[in-house]
Amino acid sequence: MDAPIGVFDSGVGGLTVVREIMRQLPSENVIYFGDTARVPYGSKSKATVLKFSKQIVRFLMTKNVKAIVFACNTASALALEDMRDEITVPVVGVVRPGARMAVSMTDTKSVGIIGTYGTIKSGIYTEYIRQLDKNVTVVGKACPLFVPLVEEGLLEDRITDDMVERYLSELKQYNVDALVLGCTHYPLLVNPIKRFMGDGVTLVNPAYETAKELKNILAKNDLLNEGKKNPGYEFYVSDGVDKFKSFADRVLPINVGEVQVVDIESY
Amino acid sequence: MDAPIGVFDSGVGGLTVVREIMRQLPSENVIYFGDTARVPYGSKSKATVLKFSKQIVRFLMTKNVKAIVFACNTASALALEDMRDEITVPVVGVVRPGARMAVSMTDTKSVGIIGTYGTIKSGIYTEYIRQLDKNVTVVGKACPLFVPLVEEGLLEDRITDDMVERYLSELKQYNVDALVLGCTHYPLLVNPIKRFMGDGVTLVNPAYETAKELKNILAKNDLLNEGKKNPGYEFYVSDGVDKFKSFADRVLPINVGEVQVVDIESY
Repeated sequence: MDAPIGVFDSGVGGLTVVREIMRQLPSENVIYFGDTARVPYGSKSKATVLKFSKQIVRFLMTKNVKAIVFACNTASALALEDMRDEITVPVVGVVRPGARMAVSMTDTKSVGIIGTYGTIKSGIYTEYIRQLDKNVTVVGKACPLFVPLVEEGLLEDRITDDMVERYLSELKQYNVDALVLGCTHYPLLVNPIKRFMGDGVTLVNPAYETAKELKNILAKNDLLNEGKKNPGYEFYVSDGVDKFKSFADRVLPINVGEVQVVDIESY
Repeated sequence: MDAPIGVFDSGVGGLTVVREIMRQLPSENVIYFGDTARVPYGSKSKATVLKFSKQIVRFLMTKNVKAIVFACNTASALALEDMRDEITVPVVGVVRPGARMAVSMTDTKSVGIIGTYGTIKSGIYTEYIRQLDKNVTVVGKACPLFVPLVEEGLLEDRITDDMVERYLSELKQYNVDALVLGCTHYPLLVNPIKRFMGDGVTLVNPAYETAKELKNILAKNDLLNEGKKNPGYEFYVSDGVDKFKSFADRVLPINVGEVQVVDIESY
């Protein structure tokens, strides 16, 4: 089926999910929306994240998407379940796939979750993980400085190592052997996090598993678009086209072309 | 005149300006709006900051304010001049008062400005300072990690000292003797900044001069409300009442009481 998949995030981080969709579903058309005018979502209330997510879903529905991916951990954690019933197409978030992957990876039955204040406070990773295996201990830690550090480009830096140590020391004591990168910016900090946590800890990036779940759901609903040669990709933001473009061109294997600004508050 | 003064900021930082207004204009009623749902403004485009500022001014006008204070450096830098003609009451921003104060403080004729990307990129401090004294050299530096460090409460911390050194080393070489804290969060970092810059550099907090300019403008327009005993203060935000309240109660000499949420996008 030819209709596009709608993907959204509070900003640019969700492009790591788009990259994975391009890999695993190379024939699908994708419409991406990044809410760059109102980013970040991580410290905002459930009511606000829900309101913003509803506006974005309404916008994506005007593009006749056949499925919607919440490629933002905070929106997946705070808004997705409340909205599921009112969305008429299949919906996938990043939290449930991330939780599933973590459970399959842990031997010590101790899993760490790092994310924004909103994601950690919601307790949703813990809930999903314990639905899958109630013997798993889940330790969550909000790491609010990671996003600004990534956005400042301090990926390999003494200051970032310093913050990694502060945020993750406690987790290390819990003997976790799987750590979920519960924010789409965090995969960019894989190196300093790996260095600190050591080889015994698997870093779980939910993007891969999210694309896999999307593929399963499309297949189950007979919505796959197999065999198409030149899929189309469209990118929309609420602010800052140039900044978005330069980030997207680095993250994605394609040139994103024209990026359009959407007055998202009017949806 | 009894009508309140409207003050706004992208979030909580503008409360430092409200505190100064309370000191210098103790009889005035104040309405404060903090755009906590869309904070921060510092890395967003002029078009977006202008749009948000217009919505907020429309909201404040519904409260029949007699004057409006842009207590946000980014909004003062990117939106105020474009909006001045359409606002029917006197308007004060923080940039012009900050610029004036810096010029009056410098002997070396070399002034530093630190602020958000938006404020620094706009070049507006440089423009105002050189209108006042074209012999002053102005050196600007964006310090985008300062706001998240303040919001994480790392006011006295090795990491903050580290970032202060990185951001300000270049400024130090220019022999500046006055440094404008061109973002309302930065006064909270006065200690680490003072330690690094040394006693020879005056840190300029525009809040004081802004309240003074407001007083002059009210007087000139015969709008002062002198002699009233119990001024009223009202606080509005677009998100996160509890978080705002706990911050405000620490910054202000009063208990802020009820904080109301405004659907600012509808203005």
